[in-house]
Amino acid sequence: MIPVYKPYFPKGALRYAHDALASTWVSSKGKYLNKVKEKLAEIWGTEYIILTNSGTAANHLMARTLKKRYIERRNLVVPNNVYVAAWNPFVMEGYILNPIDAFKETWNIDYEKIGEEHWGKAILIVHNLGNIVNVPLLRRKYPNTPFIEDNCEGFGGSYEGKPSGTASDMFTVSFFGNKNLTSGEGGAFVTYDEEFYLEAYKFWGQGMRLEARTRFIHDDIGHNYRMTNVEAAILYGQLELMDEIQEKKRIIFDRYASKFITYMEDLVYFPLPSPGTKSSDWMFAMGIKESEYYIAKKFFDSHGIETRPMFYPITRHGHLREIRCETEVAKILSKEGIILPSYPSLREDTQDYIMKKVIEYVGELTLL
Amino acid sequence: MIPVYKPYFPKGALRYAHDALASTWVSSKGKYLNKVKEKLAEIWGTEYIILTNSGTAANHLMARTLKKRYIERRNLVVPNNVYVAAWNPFVMEGYILNPIDAFKETWNIDYEKIGEEHWGKAILIVHNLGNIVNVPLLRRKYPNTPFIEDNCEGFGGSYEGKPSGTASDMFTVSFFGNKNLTSGEGGAFVTYDEEFYLEAYKFWGQGMRLEARTRFIHDDIGHNYRMTNVEAAILYGQLELMDEIQEKKRIIFDRYASKFITYMEDLVYFPLPSPGTKSSDWMFAMGIKESEYYIAKKFFDSHGIETRPMFYPITRHGHLREIRCETEVAKILSKEGIILPSYPSLREDTQDYIMKKVIEYVGELTLL
Repeated sequence: MIPVYKPYFPKGALRYAHDALASTWVSSKGKYLNKVKEKLAEIWGTEYIILTNSGTAANHLMARTLKKRYIERRNLVVPNNVYVAAWNPFVMEGYILNPIDAFKETWNIDYEKIGEEHWGKAILIVHNLGNIVNVPLLRRKYPNTPFIEDNCEGFGGSYEGKPSGTASDMFTVSFFGNKNLTSGEGGAFVTYDEEFYLEAYKFWGQGMRLEARTRFIHDDIGHNYRMTNVEAAILYGQLELMDEIQEKKRIIFDRYASKFITYMEDLVYFPLPSPGTKSSDWMFAMGIKESEYYIAKKFFDSHGIETRPMFYPITRHGHLREIRCETEVAKILSKEGIILPSYPSLREDTQDYIMKKVIEYVGELTLL
Repeated sequence: MIPVYKPYFPKGALRYAHDALASTWVSSKGKYLNKVKEKLAEIWGTEYIILTNSGTAANHLMARTLKKRYIERRNLVVPNNVYVAAWNPFVMEGYILNPIDAFKETWNIDYEKIGEEHWGKAILIVHNLGNIVNVPLLRRKYPNTPFIEDNCEGFGGSYEGKPSGTASDMFTVSFFGNKNLTSGEGGAFVTYDEEFYLEAYKFWGQGMRLEARTRFIHDDIGHNYRMTNVEAAILYGQLELMDEIQEKKRIIFDRYASKFITYMEDLVYFPLPSPGTKSSDWMFAMGIKESEYYIAKKFFDSHGIETRPMFYPITRHGHLREIRCETEVAKILSKEGIILPSYPSLREDTQDYIMKKVIEYVGELTLL
């Protein structure tokens, strides 16, 4: 089976991780945690970075932190078709989610639908599949609104020339095994606001303040969301490969898109970039008109190609089904959408095989 | 500085971890996750084991799971002098904590103080510093009470000939870097009850049921608490060394205790094992009569010996200070208690140096 994703570890890519093991610094302290933070600080222009054991944990830090400052903003505007880990930490923290339907062009939140009823609420942005929402534009439109970003799929992308995430009050990234850059499991919480940083730091490390008076006296409730030095060392190697990974993915994305547009222009569609943004090219997705994902899946499974569906509408999930919201576009995208293998080391001949099978599937559909 | 703890990685101990890296299975799947589960299943006699990214996460799974079955038991009896990660996940899940003071002999919960007012509540057991509470005895005494165990410090210990944890409805362990066996960061949730297992499994893996109908449709709220294959591989090497580690620690504990009893019998005291139990010998602790930990700390710091205080009473922590409970014994223990370095590779001459300094400190105290 051709997997939908696998991480990119060419020869030597894991040498820092071997070195971290050799040093026996395998737990929550060690030089690679610092080295990674330094590299990320250069990219994002802030020292307020907390490395975590998952993107979900980083989102939880965002949920805890936001509500400390904006007690009254526990009413959160969210997209309605994202990975559940974007919503769950906010549900856990008692937020009321106000989902807005997706936009057929971008597959992201349709911000034209942010209406008067949403004013005064905080807004959670998610960059679906790496397609970047233009947050600077939105901030100019809604100047007094706190913005936070689940940038777990967006790392590597940009808006108005700045790395995604950096226009928000806080943002998160994921370094899970299926992300462009991975630490195995892992993530990061990032902010430009000292107060947010200190609050998140406290919850991250068992409720101990950064400048705790007495070790083992805990100032507040907390969790253990620490990344390990080995995970950081894996990530350190990945950061060196960042340009190479993005380049390789860009080539695959371009090959797919130009082929599919050439052969099936009227039968398929793609998530399109918003003006002023550059995608992180996380996962290659397309919509196949009149397709049903569960049928497509069977077809591709039978040809040894793993696929993924587009994220389902929020109300499809057991614990979120009572939420009332429009899901018209999200429904279409999760029905017609399909995510194809697009990992950096995907060979050209395998890409060709996948493209051939996609064209075959779409061709069969049009005969029905 | 002689550290209070460091993990035991003799030559070759991390060879499986190097192998996991070499395989590039560095994320949430891989053979070492299965191998570790098999080894642990032999020790604990159950297949219902969930490997996590921390002991705190494992405790959170216990808190989520317990309240699903025992809605009315969100009133939880807890010890009043343990590491905060035993309490916090229950606080997060809305439990009301009913702390019971420590017992001067064992430094654990004083179960003679479990009174009529506690009947009908669930009981959380914690094995402080590895000194094991006799849970089988307690279960006979309170037959209709759910018991859960934070066995994070107890792994390696036993009660009535059975490994600690195994007499409870659910238990957790920690594989943090300062534990007898480590995976770097990590832990496990363990149960003998299928329903508990399935509930915990769901929360552990983003709310997907073990037998989910449709991938990416999530049945319930969840988190990402997964251990990585690299962490599991570190742990796999540690499990092979388990007897060696326990043996080395036992020798250090015995040397300390016999020396201190010989030289200072009336001036010091130790956590004593409950009848029918065997300690995991996690951390060596002693009480020094009339000592104040913060003064002791200064003394040992100045001689290059890192120490730790005994866990503070629950009401010393910022977010738990409103809880009303007796803390008389816990206060004395956290004032007079001190935890000394006792890691497996601690050399004899270093032990001798530490013992000399302890005797010196206690001698100085008696001159005052």
